[in-house]
Order: sequence, then C-alpha cells, then structure tokens
Amino acid sequence: MIKLFRPVLYVCGILTWIMAGLMLIPAGYGFIYDDPEFIPFLASAGLSMVLGIILVILFKAPRFTLTSRQLYLLTSCSWMLVSFLGALPLMLCHHPLSLTDAVFESVSGITTTGSTVISGLQTLPSSLLLWRSLLQWLGGLGVIGMAVTVLPFLRIGGMRLFRTESSDWAEKSLPRFNELARSLLFSYLLITCCCAASYWFAGMTPFDAINHAFTTVSTGGYATDDRSMGRFGPTILWIAVFFMLLGALPFTLFIRFLLKPSLKSLADQQVKGFLMIVAGLVIVLTTQRLLTSDTPFFAALTHTAFNLTSVITTTGYASADYTLWGQFSIALFFIVTFIGGCSGSTAGGMKVFRFQLAFLFLQDQFRKLVHPRGVFSIHYNGKLVHDDIIVSAVAFSFIFFLTLAVATLMLTAIGIDFVTSISGAATALTNVGPGLGSTIGPAGNFAPLPDLAKWVLAFTMILGRLELLTVVVLFSPTFWKG
Amino acid sequence: MIKLFRPVLYVCGILTWIMAGLMLIPAGYGFIYDDPEFIPFLASAGLSMVLGIILVILFKAPRFTLTSRQLYLLTSCSWMLVSFLGALPLMLCHHPLSLTDAVFESVSGITTTGSTVISGLQTLPSSLLLWRSLLQWLGGLGVIGMAVTVLPFLRIGGMRLFRTESSDWAEKSLPRFNELARSLLFSYLLITCCCAASYWFAGMTPFDAINHAFTTVSTGGYATDDRSMGRFGPTILWIAVFFMLLGALPFTLFIRFLLKPSLKSLADQQVKGFLMIVAGLVIVLTTQRLLTSDTPFFAALTHTAFNLTSVITTTGYASADYTLWGQFSIALFFIVTFIGGCSGSTAGGMKVFRFQLAFLFLQDQFRKLVHPRGVFSIHYNGKLVHDDIIVSAVAFSFIFFLTLAVATLMLTAIGIDFVTSISGAATALTNVGPGLGSTIGPAGNFAPLPDLAKWVLAFTMILGRLELLTVVVLFSPTFWKG
Repeated sequence: MIKLFRPVLYVCGILTWIMAGLMLIPAGYGFIYDDPEFIPFLASAGLSMVLGIILVILFKAPRFTLTSRQLYLLTSCSWMLVSFLGALPLMLCHHPLSLTDAVFESVSGITTTGSTVISGLQTLPSSLLLWRSLLQWLGGLGVIGMAVTVLPFLRIGGMRLFRTESSDWAEKSLPRFNELARSLLFSYLLITCCCAASYWFAGMTPFDAINHAFTTVSTGGYATDDRSMGRFGPTILWIAVFFMLLGALPFTLFIRFLLKPSLKSLADQQVKGFLMIVAGLVIVLTTQRLLTSDTPFFAALTHTAFNLTSVITTTGYASADYTLWGQFSIALFFIVTFIGGCSGSTAGGMKVFRFQLAFLFLQDQFRKLVHPRGVFSIHYNGKLVHDDIIVSAVAFSFIFFLTLAVATLMLTAIGIDFVTSISGAATALTNVGPGLGSTIGPAGNFAPLPDLAKWVLAFTMILGRLELLTVVVLFSPTFWKG
Repeated sequence: MIKLFRPVLYVCGILTWIMAGLMLIPAGYGFIYDDPEFIPFLASAGLSMVLGIILVILFKAPRFTLTSRQLYLLTSCSWMLVSFLGALPLMLCHHPLSLTDAVFESVSGITTTGSTVISGLQTLPSSLLLWRSLLQWLGGLGVIGMAVTVLPFLRIGGMRLFRTESSDWAEKSLPRFNELARSLLFSYLLITCCCAASYWFAGMTPFDAINHAFTTVSTGGYATDDRSMGRFGPTILWIAVFFMLLGALPFTLFIRFLLKPSLKSLADQQVKGFLMIVAGLVIVLTTQRLLTSDTPFFAALTHTAFNLTSVITTTGYASADYTLWGQFSIALFFIVTFIGGCSGSTAGGMKVFRFQLAFLFLQDQFRKLVHPRGVFSIHYNGKLVHDDIIVSAVAFSFIFFLTLAVATLMLTAIGIDFVTSISGAATALTNVGPGLGSTIGPAGNFAPLPDLAKWVLAFTMILGRLELLTVVVLFSPTFWKG
C-alpha cells in the first residue's frame, strides 16, 4: 500500500509547494495595497510550505514512473488536496468562513464551477477576490493539463479518442512532454493576457479586468461583484462571450494554430459541432424572447448570447436573471447545463464529442438497417473510431445521470426542495455554477444551504471535474485488489 | 413506395378487424346491461370493419414476408392506427370527448401509460370504462408480442440481446412462431384471470375486478374511480403489487415455467436485478417515511410498496398522493419513473437490462484498469455479450434523455411550468402515467393542459412505447433512400 501511495504523495508535496507559491501573489498584492489580509495569505503559504516539505521528504521516490492505478490516485488526491489548501486563506482571514463554506468556495473555485457562498463580493478585501480568481485560473490550467496528458491514457468516458491526438504532438514538432506542457501554459497565459487587455480597454478597472480574465478563460465564473457581469455594458459582455468560447475549445488546437497560423489548423469536428450548437441555441432563444416579450433586438441578442454561452461553456456568469424569462428559458438553461464545451478545454459538462459520437453511432445504426449485410465504420475527425471508445463515451452519459440521481436524492433527503436539488446537483456535476430556484438561481447564492448539502455539492463538483470515473474507480474493490 | 407499403397496410387492415371485434365486447356489455353507449360502440365497430375491408382488398399482398424496413414501418403505423381507432368510441359516445382528448386517452390506453383526461370516472358509463381497460390490456399484449417477435430482430437499443432467447424457443420445444404466439396469449390470459379472481375474492365487484385486472397485468394503470386505488384496503393493494410485478417480468419466462414448473425456470439475471431494485427502494423509502413522519409501520410499508411498485412497473396507479410525502419522495418518484421493468414485459421505462449492461461494462472497465493487458468479456445470463449490443443498449439512454429534453422544451414553449413539463415528458416517455405538480401529479388529471401539449405527450408516449428508435428511424433520410 505504501508503495502504491509513495510517488502519489511525493507529487502532492510538490503541488503543495506550487500552491504555497501562488498564495504569495495575493499576499504580495495585499502588502503593496495596504490590505491587512496579506498576513493570512503569508501564514497559509507558510503552512503549505511546511506540509509540502514533510510530504516531499517522507515520500521522496527514487524513480519516477506512475502506473495507471497511481495516475488515478494522484488525480483524485491532488484535486482534493489543492481544494483544502485553497480553503486555508478563507478560514484564516479577518472575516473567516467556516470550514464548510471555505472548502465549498475553494472546491467551487478550483473545479471552475463558480457557485459561491459569499455575498457582498464588492466589499470583500481585494486579496481575497484575487485568490478566488486565481483558484479558478489554476483549476482551468489543471484541467487542460489533465485532459491532454493523463485522461487520454486512462480508460475513461471515451477520452482515449484523444490519445492519438496527443501522440501526434509527440511525433511531429513537440517531441517531449515538457515542451507540450510549456506550449499549453504559454497559450493559456497568452489568451488570459489578451482577455484582460480587452476587458481593460473596454472600460473595466485593471483589477476587475485581471480577475475576470482569470475566471473567463478558465470558464470559472467567479465575479468581483454580487451582480456578476450584470453591471457591465454590451461591449464587455461580447468580449466575455468571445473568451468564454475560446476557453471551451480544445487547447491543443491553439498550440497547433501558434505553430501554423492558418484557419485549417482550427478545423476540428468537435469545435464545429460546439459552435453550431451555441449558435443554434442563441437563435432559438433570441427568437422566442422577441416573440414573447418586447425586448429590443440587440438587447435580447446580447443577453441571450451572453447567458447561454456562459452556461454552455460552464462558466456561470449571469448578466440578468434568465429564470425570469419564462418557463421555456428555465427549461432551456437547465438542459443546456448538461452539454458543456469541448474535451481538452477548461469547460465541464458532458462534452460535445460524446454527443457527436452518439449521433455518429445512431447514423451507423440507420445505415445498417437499410443495408443489413453492409460493413460500416465510424470516423471522427477523419480517424477510425473503435467500438470500445464509443461504448466508453456513451456509457459516460449513463454514469453521469446515475450520479445526478444519487446527488439529487441526497440533497432532497437533507430537506432541500426538488428543483433546487436537481438543478444544484446538475450545476455542480457539470461545473457550471448557478442552478434554478430563488436560492441558488443566477440571482441567488449557495450560502443558505445546510452544511451537509454544501459537502454533497462540493464532492459532486470534484466528481464532475474529474470525468466521474477517475474518482468512482477508487470505490471499486477491483481497484484495491490489483 | 407502394411496394414498400403494400404488406404494411394489408396487416393494418387485419389489425383494424381485430379492433372492430374488440369493440363488440363493450357493445355487447352495454346491450346486456342497458347502457345506451352500446350504439356508439356498434357504430365504431362498423366503421372499423369497413376500413379494414378497404385496406385488405386494396393492399392484399400475394406473398407475406416483411423486410426489416417494413417491420419498422408496420410497428409505427399499426400503433398509430390502433390509437386512432381506439379513440372512435370516445368521440361518438353521448358525452363525446374532443378529437384531442379522445386520441390522448386512447394513446395513453394503448401504450399502457395510464394518464387520463377524464374526471368523474365513477360516473362514466360502464362500457366506456371497459373500453379504456381493454385498450390497455390489448396494448400490453401488443408490447409483449412485439418484444418477443419483432424487436430482437431489429437493431434497437440492445434488444438483440434477446434474439438468442427467442431462437432458443424455436430450437427446443416451440418449433413454430404460431405456437410461441399462442403460448404468450395463453399465459397473458391466465395471469389476467388469476388477477381478476384475486381482486374479486378480496372484495372488488366483478366489474371492478375485471377492469383492474386488465390494467394491472398490462401495467397500464387506468382505474374506474378518480381515487385510483386509494379506495381499496391493504389486501387489494398487496394483490396489485404482486400482479404489477408479474406484469413487469419477461413473459417468455412464464412460458418456460408452464413448460417446466420449477423455480430454476424463473432464474434470470434481469428478474433478479429488477426485484432487488424494487425491494431496495421500498426499504429506503419506508425507512425514510418512518423516520420523518409518525405513520404506522404497516401503513407506511403498504403505501410505499404499492406506489413505488406502481411507478417502477410503469403502471401508474396511486393509493395516496405521494408528492405530499416530502421532497425526498418527490425526487425518488421522479427518478424511479425512468427505471421501468424487464424487457419482454408489458412495462415501459428504460428497462432493467440496460442498467445491468451499463454496470457490467463499468466493471469490465475497472478490471481492464487493474490488468491493462488482460482480455475480458461481458456475460449476461451466462451468455457472451458482444460490444455492439452494449453500445446499442447504452446509446439508448442517450437518445432517451435527448427525447426527454426536446419534449420538455416543447411543453415549456407551450407555456407549461418547468416541473409539470419535465415530469410530464418523463412520465409519457416511460409510459408510467402520473407526473409531478398539482396538475398532472398522482392526485391530478391531464385535462387542463392545452391541446397542443396533449398531442406532444401522446406522441412521446408512442415514442417511449416503441423503444424510440423504431419511430425515430422513420425520420432519417437513410431509411427512405434505401
């Protein structure tokens, strides 16, 4: 057992150091701008540093190859660890959150969900706001890294579909893993900087621009004001739409584009499908709103596009309380919660490629019906897709809805009403942010929920972020018998 | 095109005759018991007879083999036709229903859903009550027949899993198709008679006993009183539990049992799974109710078992308004709506074997994780299951939830509230009967819904009854190009 955990805990130690380093950013910011919260951040960094040293010294591994079992363990352990570390400053600050609230807020940040228990954001010390945004930014980076490096090698939800893609990188222009990691970090940083600059030019303060850039590109959705993005004009909203969409695209694509800047590098079946879904839904909802209310065209289009993009990309900003737009809008936003962005992006949800594989499979079934003796094969992005990848991708939807059912039942058992429970479970599982109902809706806040419910939701967020099976496998006896 | 449709319409003609014959039953009953409604039934029978003659003469097919495309067409056409014929007497009677209401009631009957638009059932002429029950009984028989004879030969939702089972019959003791059909009809009749007799002994009037037997064994759920089963005591409720469970088991099993009456004949992985799910859920909900209310143990157990069995078997009787039992109960009943009974039974829903295949697949994934180079295979009921059957079964869940989403959106677009819409779409798709909310909940009625919503729901019921793809395939261009 210790042999299994040793390298896992060693890597966790290194991660703890990285977290300690990150904590120095709000500490420094607080120190410069005379924000007394810099002390809790220094203390948290110190604590993390010590913990990291202990882990690294105790579990220093002589060699460094991880088996797939250790990869599973590492994935779950590292996200849990980072969640707890992220909660430290929130518990040590001058108006400390309870353990439950701090962990909820930190998990919601690191998983880029964006549900919050804090109200009065505009009165919160800047260093704390910066920390929330940083957590989401780090979470986004973690997800992309995981999607490109770890998940394709595990048998999870059809993610092996993208295995060849990463090997492509290895063959051609990025021979080493380190280079891939560096390119990812570079494009992530570049997009974040572009986003921050755009926000700033469009009228945000530098502080707001940086914070919102962190939470836009990571499709996280934490804002610096209780009104979320509702206080900004259409220019900023459309900039946000653009960068939320970018955040929901596969980041390997950006690397390809940087290497060979032509539109052809951006051609990708998943991206095409994703953009068509977004455009289609925006057209439908805008039409419905124009027909059923007297909202002017541009306002209807802006708010529809912004809020729909925000939910599909699993960001979770709101520019208005769309649950007041009528029953159709409520149902649409609830359903859209499930879709999610592209695989290999910072977005959550079920992911577009799984829907596409299911449709391709259906098409295949129809063909087989007309030509029962014909032999057909399914191609995705021009490559042959094997049956086991389709089963794996489609079985994901099964486990997804099962988890949704269990989480909903647990929340109602705690005494929360049905709509809040099912939409809360859905928004946590897909890492979107807002749910339905007056408590957790786009105009609400998760603070009034009982503590137990917050733990259920936080765990659901982690499950969703790690594509479910990565965590679920740890609960199977087979895993521990091996 | 005419070549494609000819044998389909010919079989539809014969079905129309069968419907005409069935209409003579309430006509005769009305005539004997001085119920003036016997005239509309005679008229409907006459009209159907004429239509049947026209179809048979016009489309008399020289030979009689159906291609799989014609099987798809026949399946959809016959259920639509029977639905419209079933609506005839409801439109011609002395207090006629509108076309929409009559078709809704007939579809809800023939698909064994059991949602009703009629209130004041206890004041309805007996012949009409009998007709509603007969429709469900016929629908139940149609579904079993379809599941055993047609579906395993089409590439639908993993139903080919049961192909070998039917071929088994062919090999061993029932060499011909006719014999299989006769055995099915016999066991269906036998169980119905046993159910009616039990109800009668337990205190129902003979009329109530026969009607409820028709709608229990077919897991339909039409009652003869607005209170559904709420007016009966625990003995009758437990009898209903027993026969609803029987109705949700694969009927091939009963034939096997009749041929070789031993418990071993009943051993079946799907049955075992189904009964364990029911028992588990009853224990959970009873415990929850005992902990959160002061209901006495036996009353809690009876009503929990009755209502849960009613919803899982997709019958849809209610003995109490379980939506008043708290939020946990609401969520549980909503989720349970989706499960459904066993394949090859009269029950709807997603069917237990699909959940089992998904779990087996998951187990297989876990095994592969621990032994990445191992070769494993999935067995169900002792037989090897091929990958394409698993994809097909699991892809069903995908299309299922997609249909649910579309139906929900359409209902909310009509202006119905979110909870009524999503639960209405779910209860129609799974052929259960009651939804959630004050309108269509277990204590409500579908009458207040707008006409358009009733058509959406009726179509959804047929989609659900025919395992979705049977109908959806007709909308694919591939189907018509062949």
